[in-house]
This record gives sequence, structure tokens and C-alpha cells, in this order.
Amino acid sequence: MTSYALGLDYGSDSVRALLVDVHSGKEVATNVVYYPRWKKGLFCVPAKDQFRQHPLDYLESLEQVIQGLWEKAPAGAAAQVIGIGFDTTGSTPIAVDRDGVALALKPEFAENPNAMFVLWKDHTAVKEAQEITAAAGKATENYLKYEGGIYSSEWFWAKTLHVLREDAAVAKAAYLWVEHCDWMSAVLTGTTHPSKLRMGRCATGHKLMWHESWGGYPPNDFFVGIDPLLDGLRDKLPAETFTSDQTCGHLIGEWAERLGLPLGTPVSFSAFDCHMGAVAANVKPGVLTKIMGTSTCDITVATYDDIGDKCIAGICGQVDGSVTPGFVGLEAGQSAFGDLYAWFRSLVNWPVQHLLADSLLLDDATKQKLAQEIEDNTLVALSKAASQLAIGESGITALDWVNGRRTPDADQTVAMAIAGLKMGSSAPHVFRALVEATAYGARAIIERFKQEGVAINSVVAIGGISKKSDFVMQTCADVWNCPIDVLESEQSCALGAAIFAAVVGGAYPNVEAAQKVMASTLCKTYQPNAQAAAAYEALYQQYLTLANFENTRAAGAKA
Amino acid sequence: MTSYALGLDYGSDSVRALLVDVHSGKEVATNVVYYPRWKKGLFCVPAKDQFRQHPLDYLESLEQVIQGLWEKAPAGAAAQVIGIGFDTTGSTPIAVDRDGVALALKPEFAENPNAMFVLWKDHTAVKEAQEITAAAGKATENYLKYEGGIYSSEWFWAKTLHVLREDAAVAKAAYLWVEHCDWMSAVLTGTTHPSKLRMGRCATGHKLMWHESWGGYPPNDFFVGIDPLLDGLRDKLPAETFTSDQTCGHLIGEWAERLGLPLGTPVSFSAFDCHMGAVAANVKPGVLTKIMGTSTCDITVATYDDIGDKCIAGICGQVDGSVTPGFVGLEAGQSAFGDLYAWFRSLVNWPVQHLLADSLLLDDATKQKLAQEIEDNTLVALSKAASQLAIGESGITALDWVNGRRTPDADQTVAMAIAGLKMGSSAPHVFRALVEATAYGARAIIERFKQEGVAINSVVAIGGISKKSDFVMQTCADVWNCPIDVLESEQSCALGAAIFAAVVGGAYPNVEAAQKVMASTLCKTYQPNAQAAAAYEALYQQYLTLANFENTRAAGAKA
Repeated sequence: MTSYALGLDYGSDSVRALLVDVHSGKEVATNVVYYPRWKKGLFCVPAKDQFRQHPLDYLESLEQVIQGLWEKAPAGAAAQVIGIGFDTTGSTPIAVDRDGVALALKPEFAENPNAMFVLWKDHTAVKEAQEITAAAGKATENYLKYEGGIYSSEWFWAKTLHVLREDAAVAKAAYLWVEHCDWMSAVLTGTTHPSKLRMGRCATGHKLMWHESWGGYPPNDFFVGIDPLLDGLRDKLPAETFTSDQTCGHLIGEWAERLGLPLGTPVSFSAFDCHMGAVAANVKPGVLTKIMGTSTCDITVATYDDIGDKCIAGICGQVDGSVTPGFVGLEAGQSAFGDLYAWFRSLVNWPVQHLLADSLLLDDATKQKLAQEIEDNTLVALSKAASQLAIGESGITALDWVNGRRTPDADQTVAMAIAGLKMGSSAPHVFRALVEATAYGARAIIERFKQEGVAINSVVAIGGISKKSDFVMQTCADVWNCPIDVLESEQSCALGAAIFAAVVGGAYPNVEAAQKVMASTLCKTYQPNAQAAAAYEALYQQYLTLANFENTRAAGAKA
Repeated sequence: MTSYALGLDYGSDSVRALLVDVHSGKEVATNVVYYPRWKKGLFCVPAKDQFRQHPLDYLESLEQVIQGLWEKAPAGAAAQVIGIGFDTTGSTPIAVDRDGVALALKPEFAENPNAMFVLWKDHTAVKEAQEITAAAGKATENYLKYEGGIYSSEWFWAKTLHVLREDAAVAKAAYLWVEHCDWMSAVLTGTTHPSKLRMGRCATGHKLMWHESWGGYPPNDFFVGIDPLLDGLRDKLPAETFTSDQTCGHLIGEWAERLGLPLGTPVSFSAFDCHMGAVAANVKPGVLTKIMGTSTCDITVATYDDIGDKCIAGICGQVDGSVTPGFVGLEAGQSAFGDLYAWFRSLVNWPVQHLLADSLLLDDATKQKLAQEIEDNTLVALSKAASQLAIGESGITALDWVNGRRTPDADQTVAMAIAGLKMGSSAPHVFRALVEATAYGARAIIERFKQEGVAINSVVAIGGISKKSDFVMQTCADVWNCPIDVLESEQSCALGAAIFAAVVGGAYPNVEAAQKVMASTLCKTYQPNAQAAAAYEALYQQYLTLANFENTRAAGAKA
């Protein structure tokens, strides 16, 4: 008899559903739905780095994506689903009231961005993050030592505090705050009430300063010392946390009906997208899983024997069981990867976007088509021209910090820089330098892991860029001087969620067994070219020199 | 009775002729002719920074520009010309044979770029310039002390040596080398033969290390120490040099006929373009004349009382009488000004220039027109958008060294850099930073003059940019925190040449008297805005920080 696992992957713009045959590992159907309010730009102020998502965007999209999935799936598949798994972006928290209702779902807060999910890339809480970092540095126990030593404005407590300070009405109504990933499992299993809420290990360990060694979250005094607005919050959070191979609960009637799924289907604990993507990529010690999109999320694992209590400096976090049970999950990442290319595409398309409209040579419809066509072709054409240049030919060095820096050593205040520009530096020269910059930024993360005693021998790449650009991927292999395997699956994060769904559904006794059948195969391997690697070895030093300048510059601007 | 002075201005691309009524100072006719071989790109290799001009380009264009001038001038004007003056680019030397014939005018060298004028912006002699600087540093007398201490690859001896090393045939045929400006006066007065050749003060003083205190040029031993190929060359150059208020000679029959001018018309000694432009701008102590085009040439003068034997560090030269007799002429400049904007225009038009061709939406003729239209409008549109941004809003800092740095402290190896780029940095943000960079680069020159005891209280601007862009000019006034007068004349260099022509023609006893009638009036003044100036004061420090980084980086790359 056929059984299916259902993986749901909540990205920044859309939710993807993936149905996997648990016995063959075959991906039998997939569907995607974009968040309707988000797509319209509602509740966001990009100039202030404010990015909020309405809980209804998640719930309505969930219903649509799954109803649509059944149209693509084999007849009767819905009834054969044995487990459900979720991954989401994060840290993406929301305030809930005393009854566990997300505030934006209440009429009085329906249009208030502060009552919505604060998306991972919302950077309104820069000040609060700095205060938390400072407080951790002064405390007798450094509660950030397992999160790289620096608290980010992208994370739970900074966002919570920022909104509490900004919005008295929300502060009054908020009983506690829940991460998007935990909220999804809770909604489907009817456990959103604070008395029933249970939380996954991934978000709590990586973003909430949860650690077993200090009995869960930092003590209430620590939070009150930062701001009395945080008083009591940590005590309302359940102290115990769970890995994703555990069952969070069972599908309740309302959602069984809305989704067309069997009542009581087990739902696993949730985790962040890239952590589950890494599981689909068979992550193991010595292998870095790199999800390469607009930004990157870099995941590896280490055994306790290897890592012990050692704190890895400057990464995003190290959490026992956040990826695979039995291993310490290690997270790092680049704030911009594809975003850097997108920035340049936008820069060089300014004349097309702004001057074409004034021309009397064409009608408006042709202008619009033409502008779109040129913009759509820009990166492919730049890649082609840039790939024909010799390494080091341009003399240009760039940084990849156009969105600040996530790792190594988080710092949102650093910026991108380009040096070595001459009159003959054309757009392909600059673009090549930007591609190299993203590869150097990735290398800096690999180097940091190695310096800290975490082996990285090869990389498995996931995500749009890994399949779209031979030029980028070969540059990365040469700059990192290590082979890169590219994952076959187009939906690796959802596939990881499905693997956990299969485990809680009882198809496999543990994650490892499920991975053997369900994890993705590889579609391609990039090997480093020895000569290119040697050339990049020297050029990487120039990246570090420029990086050093920018670190000093940003520090000076702050002082 | 009406008398006219004829000024001829040889720029990088074209020669301009200007006819001025010496009694009214009125500019009665002007004409321009582009060099035909240069326009086709002949004899140049931009990728190697090789830029050569054929002497026939100069001679044929001269005949054309003056014949064309008579068509625009009052009837009979040619017969009323009382004097001729020349200015040219420089250092732009050519090899001549034992008879004084420019080598490229001989059939065997007619197509050999090494037998042609080596244009000012030719940078093939970087290595030779470094050798000369090193030799000067070791000599008992530092022969570069009046030229800022650093010999440039743009200058006479470096170019001479480079060509002698590169081309044995030219080396064998070359008897001596002559600057373009001196060659023009010599050709028209029939004094090209080495026994008759006389040279102006401007080129010799600024580019040939001529100084009265060491009896003319450095001794032969100095040159032989650099390379025996230079042996004897300095001894073939006339030791005496002349200011441009002196008569070089009188128009000979051949050229009187070719140009339609009176036989025997006096021809003044020649000088470089910006030096004569400064005379048209009434340059005086405390006022900097800035010729603002693709690059800038910055000229001021000081009295001997003020400056004495003090050596001004890091500028291009200080030469008694190189601008106005009786004053020490001081030259500085930026290697890129408008060129930096042109670089950015080219960068952001890459998609239009490279992707439009592939579109099936338009026919080829429309594509070409459209691409031209967009490119032509780019800088105006960017200026408009950039001018609406607040000072410091973007957080971006840039350098202006896209062509290396001429002053302060010449260094062709430094490059442009941009720092502070974020995801929201759009083309207008970057463009504004580039405009500010050119203003900062200019300010660094002004600061250097002041540090060295040369007063700069205001600026007179000449050249394309000074009339084309309110945005650029106001930014400059704010960054420099000093008023900028813009000169009315469209042909200030040619007007300066005409002032000297009037003096040698006997209309005035000296330059000062001629300036009173003939120098240009002002068309506009930009006043600094106090608030903007204060804001730029802080931002200029960021420019200096980035400049410091790039100086270190370039030094590291050389080491």
C-alpha cells in the first residue's frame, strides 16, 4: 500500500507543498502559492527595513496550496498521507494573546503591522539587538556563546522588544510570542493555547538563547535588566523543546476538513527551512549544506565528541538536534548572494527603467515589454561576458556585504565596497568581481568553521543559483578549492519536512533510515580547477584587506 | 582701423581657431576641425594606454580650421590679423631628425606610431617614469623638486625613453624630440631645424625639468645614469627658453599662403592649453583657474616674493613665467573629472548597448536611435535625480581616481573605489557619490596648495562641465566652501592664445594690458551654502579615509 509524507515549506514569498512516496522516495506532486497581502507590499516599509507578514497570508495560502496539490497528486493520495512536516523562515515571531490567538487575527489588530509576523529580514530592531549583545557580554554567563556571540536584529528577542517598545496597544495585548514554525504545528494540532504550546529545538536554540546547560532560557533577571517590558515573558515559554523527529500533535478536525487530510494525522515539530533542506541533502560532519538564493543559509553538523562544549565564534548558532537528532546543528550564512547580483542588475538597468519612458520612438506597450526583456536577460548576458574574462584580469575586488554581514561575525552596519576600478572597468568586469565577492564571502565562513575546529571537506549546494549558473558555481568551487555537489531536488526544504513527516508517520524508525530512501540524489558535481584555485588564493587576500577596511570604516561610523 | 589676434587651441580631439578684435576684445569668429586619423582611432591601442597622433592631423586640420574661419569672419579679416598664438595639449612630444623633420612626415615612418606625437594621455611609459623619479631621488640635486617630486608617465623624458627603448629604427633616426606646442610655432616660422629651434618656457619648465637654477636641463650624466639611450639629447635642446609674450618668429611664405594670412605675421611662443586658458580667465595670486572637462587642469600663479625657492610638494610643476610673465605658474589637476561620469554612463548603459540588439521587438534603425537617445540622456537624468537627494543620505563614499591620480602626489597605479553600498543604493545614489568624489579630489588639491603656503581664496571655472551642470558646480562650491566664478568665453584657451598673439602683434605692451580688454568676462557665480559646506566637511574626512586605504592597497600591489 502506498503512503505519502507531506512537507510544507514556508519561504519569504510563497508556501510550497510537496508530496513524497515514503517507500520509493519519489516526489509525486508539488504546488506553490504566493502570499496575497505580501505580494501587494502591504504592511512593509522597505526604506525602514520593516517587513511584516499577516497570519492570514499563511493560513489562506496553506489551504490553497494543499487543495491545489490534490489536483496534481494521484487520485486518493490525500487519504494516504501518514504525516505532516513544516519548515518556515525564521526568526519570524508573532505576538499572541492570553488565549494563544495571534493578535493580527483579532479585529482590533487586523491592520496593525506590529501585531503580525516580523519576517526574518525585518531589521527594525538593530538597536535592541545591540542592547542584548551588550547585556550578554556583561552577564556572569554569556547566553550568546552558542549563537556566535552576537545577537542579531533578525532574531526573536530583539524583534519582540522592539515591537513592545513601539506599540503600547500590542504590548498590552501580547501574552507571549511564537515563532512562525512553532505556530504552524500548533495551529494544525490545536495547541496554540499557552497552556498547550510546545516548541521545536531549532528556533528556540538558534534564536531564543535556549540551552540545556542553563536550564532553558536565560533567567528573567537577565531580560528585565535589558528592559522591564520583557519581564515574565521567558517564564511563559515552555522550558522543554523538541527535535523534529518528535510528534507535536495530531491534525484537528477544522484543519483536516480545510486541507482534505485524514483527521489525527501526526504533525512533527517544525524547524527553519535550511535546517530541513540540509536533512534532505544528507548533511553529515565535514559536509556543508549551502542553500544559495538571494541570501545563503549554511548548515553543517558535528558530533558531540568532536565539538563538546566548545563555542564556535562568529556563526549564527550551534544547537543540539536542530538539524538531525544526535548531532549538533551549526548554522551560518551570507546576508546577500543572489541579492548582490540583483542589486547590480537594478543598477545597470536604471537607464532602461527610467529613460525609455520618455522616448517618442516606441509605444508604451512595446516600451514595457522591451524594458522587461532587457532586465530579464541582463544577468545571463553579464555572466556569459564575465565568464570569458581571465581570473584577476580586471584588478577589481569587491565585498558581498550589500545587506550587511550575517557571518562570520554578524554586523548589519557593514556595507559593500568595490576597489580597483579603472576607466576600462566594464559592467562584465564589475559583475565578475561581484560573483567572486559572493564566493569569497562564502569562503570566509568555511575558513571560520575550519579555524574553530569544524571540518568542511566538501559542499552540497541547494537552491536556485546552484542550478541556474555554471559560472557562479565553478567560481565557487575554484575559490573554495573544494568540490560542490548540487542537489537534484527542486524542493529540498519541503523534502526535508517530508522526511520528518515520514518519521512521525511511522514509516521509518528514525531520520537516518528515512534519509536513506527519501533524501535527494545529486544532479551534478563541480570540481575545483587547481590553477584557478591557486590564482584565487592570492586574490582572496585582497578581499580580506578590503573587508578589514570596511570593518574599520563601519566601526568608525558607529563611534 | 580694426586689428585681429588669432588664437589656435589644439585639444585632444580637435583644433579650434578663434579670431578676436584686439581693441574691443570681441570674439568675432570661431571654427573647429576634428583630427581625421585620430577620429578613426588610428595608431592607438587603448587597452595598452597607447595614444598617438599623426603630425599630418595637426597640419591638415590647421589649414582647414583657418580656411573655414575666414568663411565665418568679417570680409577682409585675414589681412587684418596682427599676431598668432598657439596652445596645445602636453606633454605631447615627437621625434625629429637631424634636419628637424618630424619622423612620421618621412615616408619610411609614415605609419609608425612611435614616430608620431605621443599624446599627453598615453601611459605606455609608466616604468620609465618610475626610473626617472628614482634617479632624481638619488641625485645630489633633486631635479624634480619644482615638478612636485614625482615624474609622470605623461611627460617628455619618460615618453622619449620609452620609445627609444621600444623602437630601434626610431631611435636611430631621432635627433631630438620636440613638444607639440613648440613644434607648431616652429613650423609656422620655419624654425624646425635644430640649429634654429627655440622653445617656450611652459613645456620645458613643467615637463622637461628645465630650471634656471641648474642652468637649464639636468646634466647629461643624470640622463645617461638612467639609460645611455638618452646620451647627448639634453645638449641638443636649446638651453634658453621663452615666455609666450615673446615673439618666436614670423609667418613664412608657405604657411602664409596655406592659411591666407599676411606674410611675416608674428607668432608667439606657445604654451599648454590650460595655462593660456588661465590667462584668459585673468588668473592671479589667490585664484585657482580650473579647466573642467574629462580631466581637469588647475592653474594658479604666485609672486616670487610669496613663494621664493620653496618647492610645492605633490603638484605638477612650478615654473617662472609659464602662465604670465613675472609670476610663477603653478599647475595641478585631476586625471578624471567628466571621465568618471562617462565611466558610469557607460557602465549603466551596458544592457542597452549589448542586449537591445537581440530584441525582436524593434528594427535595427530604431534600436540604434533608441540606444543613442538613452545614452545621451543618461547623465542629465542621473544629475536631476541625484540633485534631489540629501547630502550624506546614501552613505556612499567614492574616490575619483578612475584614471589614476595626477595631483596631489601623482600615482597612476591608484584606482577608483566605492564604499558604503547597500541594497537600496540606486544609480542616482552612486552617481551623486561620484560627483562628490570629483569635488573631493579637487578639494584635496586646494588643500595641498594651502598647506604649502599658496593661497586659494576662490576658483574660476572654465570648460564644458562648468557651463553644463549646475548640480556639479554647486556641489563643488559646497565641498570647496568657496565661490566659483564661471567664465563666459566658450573658447578660453584659444582666447588666451589670442591675448599673447595681440601682445606679439604690438597691440599691447604686455599681457596685463591685453587682459584688461581681451580677457573673458564671467557668466555666473556659484556661492557655497554654509549648511551644505558644514555637512561636506565631515564627509570629506570619509573620502580621505578611503583614499588612505587605496594608497596603501596600490602600494601593496606594487610591492
